[in-house]
Amino acid sequence: MTPASIFIGEFIGTAILILMGNGVCAAVALGKSKAHAAGWVAIAFGWGFAVLAGAYASFTLSGAHINPAVTIGLAANTGQWANVPIYIAAQMLGAITGAVLCWLAYLGQFRANTQPVLGIFSTAPEIRNTTQNLITEIIATFVLVFVIIASGTVEGLTLSGTGVLIVALLVVGIGLSLGGPTGYAINPARDLGPRIAHAILPIPGKTTSDWGYSWIPVVGPLIGGALAGLLAAAAL
Amino acid sequence: MTPASIFIGEFIGTAILILMGNGVCAAVALGKSKAHAAGWVAIAFGWGFAVLAGAYASFTLSGAHINPAVTIGLAANTGQWANVPIYIAAQMLGAITGAVLCWLAYLGQFRANTQPVLGIFSTAPEIRNTTQNLITEIIATFVLVFVIIASGTVEGLTLSGTGVLIVALLVVGIGLSLGGPTGYAINPARDLGPRIAHAILPIPGKTTSDWGYSWIPVVGPLIGGALAGLLAAAAL
Amino acid sequence: MTPASIFIGEFIGTAILILMGNGVCAAVALGKSKAHAAGWVAIAFGWGFAVLAGAYASFTLSGAHINPAVTIGLAANTGQWANVPIYIAAQMLGAITGAVLCWLAYLGQFRANTQPVLGIFSTAPEIRNTTQNLITEIIATFVLVFVIIASGTVEGLTLSGTGVLIVALLVVGIGLSLGGPTGYAINPARDLGPRIAHAILPIPGKTTSDWGYSWIPVVGPLIGGALAGLLAAAAL
Amino acid sequence: MTPASIFIGEFIGTAILILMGNGVCAAVALGKSKAHAAGWVAIAFGWGFAVLAGAYASFTLSGAHINPAVTIGLAANTGQWANVPIYIAAQMLGAITGAVLCWLAYLGQFRANTQPVLGIFSTAPEIRNTTQNLITEIIATFVLVFVIIASGTVEGLTLSGTGVLIVALLVVGIGLSLGGPTGYAINPARDLGPRIAHAILPIPGKTTSDWGYSWIPVVGPLIGGALAGLLAAAAL
Repeated sequence: MTPASIFIGEFIGTAILILMGNGVCAAVALGKSKAHAAGWVAIAFGWGFAVLAGAYASFTLSGAHINPAVTIGLAANTGQWANVPIYIAAQMLGAITGAVLCWLAYLGQFRANTQPVLGIFSTAPEIRNTTQNLITEIIATFVLVFVIIASGTVEGLTLSGTGVLIVALLVVGIGLSLGGPTGYAINPARDLGPRIAHAILPIPGKTTSDWGYSWIPVVGPLIGGALAGLLAAAAL
Repeated sequence: MTPASIFIGEFIGTAILILMGNGVCAAVALGKSKAHAAGWVAIAFGWGFAVLAGAYASFTLSGAHINPAVTIGLAANTGQWANVPIYIAAQMLGAITGAVLCWLAYLGQFRANTQPVLGIFSTAPEIRNTTQNLITEIIATFVLVFVIIASGTVEGLTLSGTGVLIVALLVVGIGLSLGGPTGYAINPARDLGPRIAHAILPIPGKTTSDWGYSWIPVVGPLIGGALAGLLAAAAL
Repeated sequence: MTPASIFIGEFIGTAILILMGNGVCAAVALGKSKAHAAGWVAIAFGWGFAVLAGAYASFTLSGAHINPAVTIGLAANTGQWANVPIYIAAQMLGAITGAVLCWLAYLGQFRANTQPVLGIFSTAPEIRNTTQNLITEIIATFVLVFVIIASGTVEGLTLSGTGVLIVALLVVGIGLSLGGPTGYAINPARDLGPRIAHAILPIPGKTTSDWGYSWIPVVGPLIGGALAGLLAAAAL
Repeated sequence: MTPASIFIGEFIGTAILILMGNGVCAAVALGKSKAHAAGWVAIAFGWGFAVLAGAYASFTLSGAHINPAVTIGLAANTGQWANVPIYIAAQMLGAITGAVLCWLAYLGQFRANTQPVLGIFSTAPEIRNTTQNLITEIIATFVLVFVIIASGTVEGLTLSGTGVLIVALLVVGIGLSLGGPTGYAINPARDLGPRIAHAILPIPGKTTSDWGYSWIPVVGPLIGGALAGLLAAAAL
């Protein structure tokens, strides 16, 4: 895979991931939406199948990372760090773009809305506690990256087609099981990209973008992913 | 694939798609149905597995398009336009037939019903705004067609068996994530065919078939599908 | 496959199908159950994954029919009728056995219950009308059998492993989409076997076994399955 | 597979299984959780995809048992008993570890909670009756192990990648269909490991660990698994 191919794949794939992931949050949270109040099962499957879409969109081009924690985890696992900056740059730009696309798809709903909308874009903990929130994100991302590697569906830095399906269902499961405390960022681009979009977009009546919390869903997943990559290298 | 094979496959496949897709809407919306008020998760999985059924019904005969936006997208992607009219004609006739079959399966429920039923047949926006509704349908259909092509499960104009499974889950995801504003037609035949059936069928107390909106879920998906096919040709 | 292998496979597979299918109905309908009132999505996935379990239990032994309508449909499709009586006899005995096993698994709940329980064992229409109920069962079973054959995952009379997974998800979809009016028997053994068990078992306060309706979920599915097999033979 | 590889695989796999399985119970049961009151469908899919995660985490190392009832069942089926103690020891230690990790991930929620929490860790029957509870666990575990073996996705003592996916969906189905009376332990490590963790962990206001019931979800699954292995050896 060339650097250009990686950049294009990760940009498009992460944009689709966030378009759909933010999309299910918008669908459930906003009024005048057919999915209003559809509940946590809808959120968990929505995010899981957002991964399905984003990962299949990117996997022939870039190997379907669409997540800096996966990229760092696979780099730590294999020692191949050369393309990491390209991956992460594309993921971040894609995530911002995806959040803007979600806002466009739900523009009428956003305009009719009077409630805070940051929760549609980025995660926030139910109980705010730096250590606890970090631990939850580390544990959840560790599961994601360790299972990806251990499932035997990654070759070097590239997920297989079967691997994408497994990861999609795995993300449904992580949402159901480990999403309760912090909303399971488990992906720095998934959280920081839409937060930047939230700060930029002209959303009526929007509140702060909660920058005080913003580093936790970046650092926690990176630690969890790296730990998973290193442990997998030692154990498998 | 011969033109006759394509016609038969797309006719049967799209009929089954609409029978089941309209079916889940009838099941949830109508009274005296065991699925009454089963909610949006039921709708999203119902439509996704309607795609599963319709696409597997057609894929050895016609390659499992069952959607003019997919046909146009794959034609734009490959430059193979010869059979496009056959595909679309069969899809439209199949969609009308499927809506009639749904009406037959739920005949007792339709007769006992006193509420408007157009929402069982065709989509309608939560907030009526031409530009916004078009944008939502374009974005959602772009995701559908781009992921189908990028997933590497299409050969020429034909989905593989694995591709059908992926597309079914993808449609569940699109419903959950991007269905809120307009009800995700993402398929001109899915919307226009049942609307014609609604206009024709002798349903007691039925309202208008809302022809003013009817062009948006046709034009939006065609634009989104074509854009996806062209971008995929350039990027992949 | 020998006749003995077919008998054992279909007996065990259909027993597991009904144990789990009746099981999800018991889980949702009965009090003092952790799944009480879990809703129609639970029912639809429960029956679909009951097919997954029953079909995988039987597929190396007998090719995973576990449904007389599938057996008749495949026989009509291929002209191979020799083993049909063995298949159907095993399915019926297995279905009765499965219903008894379900009663054993939920014995405490049945004893604590004071409501009618026939709905846990067999289907009943929401609106009782012979013609309409027959049509619904014919249409739903036609979809089941036609998609099984058209999906290209049957060789002669035998489903493949991939085919079993497809059929399981297909049955989830049929439940969501076409189960509203009659509760989707789509399988004569699924309905008649548990009805016989209901008539025999010593359930406190049980009502009639509704024999007046019992022929519809037998005849409807057999007609639908045979039509599907014949149409598939002509079309594919 | 070496004994060391088996130990590591089963330890990690069972830890992830319980982290996520206990996790979904915590997510639904505890307050200040985004999944609070998400219902039985969330529980059933959460446990099923916990199996997906734990089994893929372990399958290249140890063949993805993560359940003493599966280990005993496969040993009874094949006559290969040599590594059984290693499997079970690792599963038990992994299960305790997984429960502790779940407690860490939900630490804030546990601290804010004032309700009994044993139900997050271990199973309890809705109606307490030794014979009935044993029968339910035997039947449910029989289905699990018989279908695993009959599905043709086990080679010796090792599940295939496809087998893991099937087992995950099968566990969703067992939960929906047979989980009502006892909460479907179907795995001695899944129940006893977290019960030990519950007894040890410093959880404010915790109640008894209900040791009187604790042997049923151990003995029932072992009987069910062994019966399935023996019957499968005779029948397949």
